[in-house]
Amino acid sequence: MASQGTLQGIFTPNMVPLDERGEINEPELRRYTDWLIESGVHGLYPNGSTGEFTRCTREERRRIIEIMVDQTAGRVPILAGAAEANVRETLAACEYYHGLGVRAVAIVAPFYYKLSPDNVYAYFKEIGNNTPVDVTLYNIPMFASPIDVPTIQRLSEDCERIVAIKDSSGDIPQMMRMIEAVRPNRPDFSFLTGWDVVLLPMMIIGADGGTNATSGVVPELTRKLYDLAAAGQIDEAVRFQYKIRKIFDAILYSADFPEACRVAVGLRGFRMGSGRQPLSDEHKAKLADMKNSFRQLLDQEGLLGSTAPSAPVTLDARQIGQIVEGVVAELQTRGMA
Amino acid sequence: MASQGTLQGIFTPNMVPLDERGEINEPELRRYTDWLIESGVHGLYPNGSTGEFTRCTREERRRIIEIMVDQTAGRVPILAGAAEANVRETLAACEYYHGLGVRAVAIVAPFYYKLSPDNVYAYFKEIGNNTPVDVTLYNIPMFASPIDVPTIQRLSEDCERIVAIKDSSGDIPQMMRMIEAVRPNRPDFSFLTGWDVVLLPMMIIGADGGTNATSGVVPELTRKLYDLAAAGQIDEAVRFQYKIRKIFDAILYSADFPEACRVAVGLRGFRMGSGRQPLSDEHKAKLADMKNSFRQLLDQEGLLGSTAPSAPVTLDARQIGQIVEGVVAELQTRGMA
Amino acid sequence: MASQGTLQGIFTPNMVPLDERGEINEPELRRYTDWLIESGVHGLYPNGSTGEFTRCTREERRRIIEIMVDQTAGRVPILAGAAEANVRETLAACEYYHGLGVRAVAIVAPFYYKLSPDNVYAYFKEIGNNTPVDVTLYNIPMFASPIDVPTIQRLSEDCERIVAIKDSSGDIPQMMRMIEAVRPNRPDFSFLTGWDVVLLPMMIIGADGGTNATSGVVPELTRKLYDLAAAGQIDEAVRFQYKIRKIFDAILYSADFPEACRVAVGLRGFRMGSGRQPLSDEHKAKLADMKNSFRQLLDQEGLLGSTAPSAPVTLDARQIGQIVEGVVAELQTRGMA
Amino acid sequence: MASQGTLQGIFTPNMVPLDERGEINEPELRRYTDWLIESGVHGLYPNGSTGEFTRCTREERRRIIEIMVDQTAGRVPILAGAAEANVRETLAACEYYHGLGVRAVAIVAPFYYKLSPDNVYAYFKEIGNNTPVDVTLYNIPMFASPIDVPTIQRLSEDCERIVAIKDSSGDIPQMMRMIEAVRPNRPDFSFLTGWDVVLLPMMIIGADGGTNATSGVVPELTRKLYDLAAAGQIDEAVRFQYKIRKIFDAILYSADFPEACRVAVGLRGFRMGSGRQPLSDEHKAKLADMKNSFRQLLDQEGLLGSTAPSAPVTLDARQIGQIVEGVVAELQTRGMA
Repeated sequence: MASQGTLQGIFTPNMVPLDERGEINEPELRRYTDWLIESGVHGLYPNGSTGEFTRCTREERRRIIEIMVDQTAGRVPILAGAAEANVRETLAACEYYHGLGVRAVAIVAPFYYKLSPDNVYAYFKEIGNNTPVDVTLYNIPMFASPIDVPTIQRLSEDCERIVAIKDSSGDIPQMMRMIEAVRPNRPDFSFLTGWDVVLLPMMIIGADGGTNATSGVVPELTRKLYDLAAAGQIDEAVRFQYKIRKIFDAILYSADFPEACRVAVGLRGFRMGSGRQPLSDEHKAKLADMKNSFRQLLDQEGLLGSTAPSAPVTLDARQIGQIVEGVVAELQTRGMA
Repeated sequence: MASQGTLQGIFTPNMVPLDERGEINEPELRRYTDWLIESGVHGLYPNGSTGEFTRCTREERRRIIEIMVDQTAGRVPILAGAAEANVRETLAACEYYHGLGVRAVAIVAPFYYKLSPDNVYAYFKEIGNNTPVDVTLYNIPMFASPIDVPTIQRLSEDCERIVAIKDSSGDIPQMMRMIEAVRPNRPDFSFLTGWDVVLLPMMIIGADGGTNATSGVVPELTRKLYDLAAAGQIDEAVRFQYKIRKIFDAILYSADFPEACRVAVGLRGFRMGSGRQPLSDEHKAKLADMKNSFRQLLDQEGLLGSTAPSAPVTLDARQIGQIVEGVVAELQTRGMA
Repeated sequence: MASQGTLQGIFTPNMVPLDERGEINEPELRRYTDWLIESGVHGLYPNGSTGEFTRCTREERRRIIEIMVDQTAGRVPILAGAAEANVRETLAACEYYHGLGVRAVAIVAPFYYKLSPDNVYAYFKEIGNNTPVDVTLYNIPMFASPIDVPTIQRLSEDCERIVAIKDSSGDIPQMMRMIEAVRPNRPDFSFLTGWDVVLLPMMIIGADGGTNATSGVVPELTRKLYDLAAAGQIDEAVRFQYKIRKIFDAILYSADFPEACRVAVGLRGFRMGSGRQPLSDEHKAKLADMKNSFRQLLDQEGLLGSTAPSAPVTLDARQIGQIVEGVVAELQTRGMA
Repeated sequence: MASQGTLQGIFTPNMVPLDERGEINEPELRRYTDWLIESGVHGLYPNGSTGEFTRCTREERRRIIEIMVDQTAGRVPILAGAAEANVRETLAACEYYHGLGVRAVAIVAPFYYKLSPDNVYAYFKEIGNNTPVDVTLYNIPMFASPIDVPTIQRLSEDCERIVAIKDSSGDIPQMMRMIEAVRPNRPDFSFLTGWDVVLLPMMIIGADGGTNATSGVVPELTRKLYDLAAAGQIDEAVRFQYKIRKIFDAILYSADFPEACRVAVGLRGFRMGSGRQPLSDEHKAKLADMKNSFRQLLDQEGLLGSTAPSAPVTLDARQIGQIVEGVVAELQTRGMA
């Protein structure tokens, strides 16, 4: 029962700030959550690929959802990444996140092993039959087993609880085929694109929105593009699509994903910390270059001054300690302390 | 300090029997471990791709190593798959397995995200600098970020603790390039192939052995092939390489990996249980076909009668209960109960 | 000097009717040419991939252009596929087609061998420096060496005679990158998409039109889609893009390209003859199925009755003989004679 | 009726020397042909991929075979590359080369378009049914439609005239599958590898020899490797396989294929001229580097002094003029004239 209406709009696949010990930086994650909501995104999507869910432990993935549900406090819907090691673990995550009150979960197709389409179906069927919460399929063929059109169609017909697909293939004809195969029988089914660089064309041919990494960096622009597309102001939307193209390419191709995204969010005023994947000197140099060109890009858009507000968050002593440590660490990174 | 000599011979990347509740079937895992050792494999390699390490939880991966170290009791060296969500978790696993007394760990290159070579280097460098136990690099480009030859060379020169590579590319020129790049400076470094279908050619051009899925199914034949290759009895070795070709292809290509392997091990007399990846009806039919043709194949090799011995294992009440449940489940599966 | 204005609109990559001996069916090619022009396409593009240029001899490729230039008689511009075995042969073709009066030539990147970008540049630079006629680059990465964005940019800056790109990658972000890289310095440079299924999105983000196989089959619809897109009537254009999607997919994926296209053009009333690539029985059955479903599709669009006009062509005795033979052959194919 | 025995040994896919005008340099081609035969190769394979058959015209391809048949004068068998634009043209080439007295032709699978296996079968079946001369299938999946194992098996069963496969995939398991599928019914069928870097393993598992680009550069070494492999002197053969590995990699990967091969043959004392594919400055620098390291490599093998003999060839005035021009051109290239 997809009682809460079709998923629609821009959902941010947010990164998670880490502190100097490599742990989740809770106050900063809360501050980032607030900023995203205030900047206009329609929903949040923690534990996605941008959020490096595979580099977190099961416990951390749960903690991230807890923090963000709490901080969001119902202001926007949350789509929680719920993929775990196997179906049983994934269903346990679905139940847990359902208990927390998320709008839906998103589950990536099995990865590492490459599954054939019939087993991709079997996997999601088992989940669809047993989940207490609405499920979004997550198709990202560059990282995981692809979910093909007949599989999506069968799942949409067989599992009422499966209510959407997030497609990160960027393949427009594929999106058209999906919409034609599913929408007639499931008008409530939602189609979201994870490929920001084609958000406008995807919306023109019928998609309902996106889960877009750029919206974690320049939520103002991604939201604006969505609004223009939804309003049919095509010429102006094209202008914004070209802006997003530039930012998306920088995030995707200037370094191993999603390292450049972390740097970019940092430029918006958040202490993201170091990622968990060790980086080569070569990569650090690439990211420094990217940082400079990205700063110019933000400046051109008038987004450099609009750093994140210091949202009034209630902090306990431990959290304050963390923040202080974080600042010191950042200063050290920059060679200032 | 690779004090215990070069890794050499056939290491079995073993599957893990599950009981009717989907949990690790400890008595059966112990019985399977014994049988593998008695059938002549030189070592064991739990938590590999054949062992479906990604479908287990961190706790299960540790439990599997504990059981197998205990059951092996030093009879053969253990190469423990130790890849976890991130470097810190992986290093914690290295320490834990070191404490258990494994000969070495094997660590797959980062997967899901595709890393560039310089970051693959950075990842293993961080591990190589901090591990208390010898490390085998695990290159499996069909599932994970590839580890290229310059990266292997740099790691072999920079990290004494990195002592071997398990290569599952099956690429013979690549193996030649690796050997030429590494062996002059690191004569102790070991080269193992995970691609059974070319075990003989790999050994001819200089590999030290393999971590071979077929050795979990027909350890007698894989070991025989190794012995013939090591002895330079090429004509006879070719005959066995063709046998292994047939078995390897059946395991790799008759169903999504490693489902066919589970069926095949079952035919050798072990109750493997159902895997954790739900299977479509189409896939179940494929596996039934595969089972029949594989039974004939074993029969031709005179391996059908030589079912696994009921090794005398000391069982407690819980374990006996598990076995009984397992048998009943298996009978139900076969429609006999 | 691109004196004749930017290439714009729909250029049909036409197939070539063959007679029962496998030779170019000249009267039918003339009739088809007329019908395409009368059906509204803006230009013609013989010797493209749809036109199976690689399966013709050099002499045939020249003959095709001669016939079509003659029949077109200046009514629409001709873009002549001019790729030959090597640069010298290609330049000779450029000169020959220039002498015939074509608007421009189109030259596919080198194929068979996969060239690196710097040599793709060197190849087109040599041609661009020596051609007497305007050149369209033809990028079709699924068949030939890709032409990447920096290469296109350099060529557009270094060679005035290179005036357009036909891109059959279907990659929208790539088209955006090309337009951003080239248009500021070369406002006259034209961007055409060969991927009909994204014609609308391509035009929205700035493309000038397309060279579209569907326009050889349903020129009425492809032209309509172009007109709606050019007029900014997006909702109606989307409806036509979905129609074209269906036809394009049928042409591309129901059989080895471009066999299904031949069948489809046949349904519009042209005797296309048998192709030069021998077909398996399996493929013939696929094409028969495709023919049936395509007939329904045409019927739905009201295009089944609108068979091609018997355009008044002046025929000599030999040509009349050919037509008679062609009809008899067709009847025999259908089991009626 | 493959009356002349199984194809066996090393067949050289020779390059074609060009003069300063870019035309076939006949005297040099004759001299190169002699040198190859005198250096011990078992046969010659003109118009292969190394011979850049796609960059020649139909007339040139015929001329190359004429010259080489004439010069060879029956000393070694010739395998003539006979692929043309379509089946009819290819069959005409088969007839022509048959008339010249070649041992067999080699025909690459259709390229540019990617054919499905059933149409690859249909293509070769049509040829196999109508050729007057024995046919070698040519499988090179990196450049042309792949010929899969079931297709090879069917063709070997249905067409007596198809007598061999040249496989340039380098895929050892694939070769094993082919041999198992074909040899029982066609003991006369020959399996040749075009992937020099695995010539030894291929011969160990049953291949009959190879068509190897390295044999056009270091025929002494490739032949030696073949002899050692055939004699079962494995340890020594491995040593030569490693040498060939180095040369093969240099030829394949130091520049766009086959440019490095042209440079390497030049170092053996032949005036190869410039290739037909224009080269970038970047590529010219790469080739200069390659030339230096290749010279060292030849020196190590004692092959630098053993330049090609000035074989006594009867020259007419025109040919002498060509040679003089060639020398002058070469001197100019080297900045000496």
